[in-house]
Amino acid sequence: MADQKATNVTWHDHQVTKEQRQKLNGHKGAVLWFTGLSGCGKSTIANAVDTMLHGRGIHTFVLDGDNIRMGLNKNLGFSPEDRTENIRRIGEVSKLFCDGATIVSTAFISPYKADRDIVRALMPKGEFIEIYVNASLETCEARDPKGLYKKARAGQIKGFTGIDAPYEAPEAPELVLDSDKFGVEDLAKQVIAYLEKSGFLSA
Amino acid sequence: MADQKATNVTWHDHQVTKEQRQKLNGHKGAVLWFTGLSGCGKSTIANAVDTMLHGRGIHTFVLDGDNIRMGLNKNLGFSPEDRTENIRRIGEVSKLFCDGATIVSTAFISPYKADRDIVRALMPKGEFIEIYVNASLETCEARDPKGLYKKARAGQIKGFTGIDAPYEAPEAPELVLDSDKFGVEDLAKQVIAYLEKSGFLSA
Repeated sequence: MADQKATNVTWHDHQVTKEQRQKLNGHKGAVLWFTGLSGCGKSTIANAVDTMLHGRGIHTFVLDGDNIRMGLNKNLGFSPEDRTENIRRIGEVSKLFCDGATIVSTAFISPYKADRDIVRALMPKGEFIEIYVNASLETCEARDPKGLYKKARAGQIKGFTGIDAPYEAPEAPELVLDSDKFGVEDLAKQVIAYLEKSGFLSA
Repeated sequence: MADQKATNVTWHDHQVTKEQRQKLNGHKGAVLWFTGLSGCGKSTIANAVDTMLHGRGIHTFVLDGDNIRMGLNKNLGFSPEDRTENIRRIGEVSKLFCDGATIVSTAFISPYKADRDIVRALMPKGEFIEIYVNASLETCEARDPKGLYKKARAGQIKGFTGIDAPYEAPEAPELVLDSDKFGVEDLAKQVIAYLEKSGFLSA
């Protein structure tokens, strides 16, 4: 057994580091945390950013309602406790992707400041990039892409953010995107510019 | 608003697909699910495979106790329900990494067949690769790298797999690694050979 034990030790000493994964990918990892009201454009902008980065050979991934609420978080509802646990789990998964040198975009309302701050605290400083997609309630309600505001106004959905549940806007986000004034492509380019300026797009 | 809405639609049509991520990485994603008794060598072999693949330019990640039990699953204990939820969440996260064209290795005892089968069912056929790291209880207990068997025998740990909790060996795993007979490097090479043969290492 002595030989094999020695081998074990050698291998344990050679785990692949975060820096080595960054070197392979040619860039750093980051968490682009898009937050804002339903209909503000979070998911659309996140996917636009993801598409632009992918086109430049950057390794990316998107976490959104489609792949989280139906999978990892399918056993969570919309109570305050469940919303907090929802965001916590998404934060932990984002951290794993970030450790793997991936630029991960998340698109969740994430209405509570305390929950977003918990996620920020998980990451090394600078890797959590809070992006407030700022659109007026009027704009979001006029868009109403899934008809959810109509249902919330009719009382068919309870606890809907912006109607009968609060949205706590970020106080010091890394980026604010004005979704009332600019189109998706312009806003996505603002995010890319931030990543370039901050050195994330090289290893 | 009409212009912007049109832009939204365009972008939604251009989400990055799994196939595009595979093309960028130059290989497919897969889940290498290492299962076996405590001390059988799961984590050591998983890290050896990860290091070998990384050295060949393959995009990889390891999920293990260090980054899961302290993070995503820190609110879970060791009751049967919590063990099941532990494995379910790890399965869902593995699937996300796999969708991102990463070869992810997981190193958890995962003693229950039903739990492993739930994870298998999450993935498209072929992407879940169950790897039974087979070492006799005698070997594992002699290694006892964390001194856990000693504590379990002394009754200081309850519900310890192999001592007073069952380990259900896989009935039809994709790979069986004989950890009593072979060293870490040999076993890791057997995993790489499986991935090559099965076409995972090209896009």
